[in-house]
Amino acid sequence: MKRVGVVLCGCGRFDGSEIHESVLTLLHLQRAGARPLCMAPDAEQWAVCDHFDGKPREGETRNMLHEAARIARGDVVALGALGAGDMDALILPGGTGVTRNLCDFKEKGAGARVRPELAALIREVHAAGKPIGAICISPVLIALVLGEKKPLLTLGKMNRSAEKASVHGARFVPCATESVVVDEENRIVSTPAYVTARHIGEADAGIARLVAEVLRRTE
Amino acid sequence: MKRVGVVLCGCGRFDGSEIHESVLTLLHLQRAGARPLCMAPDAEQWAVCDHFDGKPREGETRNMLHEAARIARGDVVALGALGAGDMDALILPGGTGVTRNLCDFKEKGAGARVRPELAALIREVHAAGKPIGAICISPVLIALVLGEKKPLLTLGKMNRSAEKASVHGARFVPCATESVVVDEENRIVSTPAYVTARHIGEADAGIARLVAEVLRRTE
Repeated sequence: MKRVGVVLCGCGRFDGSEIHESVLTLLHLQRAGARPLCMAPDAEQWAVCDHFDGKPREGETRNMLHEAARIARGDVVALGALGAGDMDALILPGGTGVTRNLCDFKEKGAGARVRPELAALIREVHAAGKPIGAICISPVLIALVLGEKKPLLTLGKMNRSAEKASVHGARFVPCATESVVVDEENRIVSTPAYVTARHIGEADAGIARLVAEVLRRTE
Repeated sequence: MKRVGVVLCGCGRFDGSEIHESVLTLLHLQRAGARPLCMAPDAEQWAVCDHFDGKPREGETRNMLHEAARIARGDVVALGALGAGDMDALILPGGTGVTRNLCDFKEKGAGARVRPELAALIREVHAAGKPIGAICISPVLIALVLGEKKPLLTLGKMNRSAEKASVHGARFVPCATESVVVDEENRIVSTPAYVTARHIGEADAGIARLVAEVLRRTE
């Protein structure tokens, strides 16, 4: 049974992991007979956002690991507890938490830094020749950590985020919502999901392909 | 385009709606070309539970509608704002929130009461001859509201909940996780999902069938 690390960072698109993208990742892994290994930083989220009115809520705090446990139904460990040797592949779902909790790209752009335990994991998995899947805004993490490898990535459309994230060498190309971009040399697969998806069906089509392409490269 | 009401009550299996069941419901509705109409009570959850250690968190409160917006990506309205005339069918995902937020079955058993706005909606949708889908523990809501119609329902296996919920007339039968029970006369479809599912793939199979059977009965 293939084991696939899935990095979460809360529960909700504004302050953590995008829920649909995360659940669809788990669904397609399970359908393919792979075992998801959910991980999230055991630390506070950047903020708590009200997903009904979109506003940050002053004075509230939530822990990324404990909130991610809602998506993972409790089957989640602290980011850093597992290394590249524990998994056959790594998948990074999206959500604003990616650019706020897992790195500070939203605030700092090209000068952003990725959480050290995640940067180390991405580097190790890549160095071991194991495939990585990056969904939605997560290709930014790959660009920040592996920029010098000139990874081929997509954020769906060419936008300001793609411009800023490409400064260190990553190459961004457009991609249809239901499709994926594959960097054969670096063994990295990316799909736009809710960067461009208009509904869950579109996001699902791209994530299904991403999971299949990632798993195929574990063989 | 068929419109299908989806009743949520928070975001997480211990204190609100089961996330996988809710997302899979939205996925299969969207794939079939139907439009989900998410609804949740604009009121406080029964509690806030930590989904990492399973414990209630003292002194914290969360609002069901605002938390459900995480699952619905903001596309959710207050329960009570829509009536049977606004939808072609109604689907009730599961989670402990169903028996704690939407009714007090967990505490009161057979003597439980369903939130009045939800009880009214279930009665109206049923009276209009429109189909209802009940996932996981949600058949309990049908048993409490429509017991005198002798609805045929499932909670997967025959357990204490099924015993207590059948007091007012509902008939519970066993059902495989990937399957559904259909009450043709009452136009009610139910599936066990995470009452018995061991993983998301099993829950998905049953929910896919439930959505298909519900939509077929809207024609």
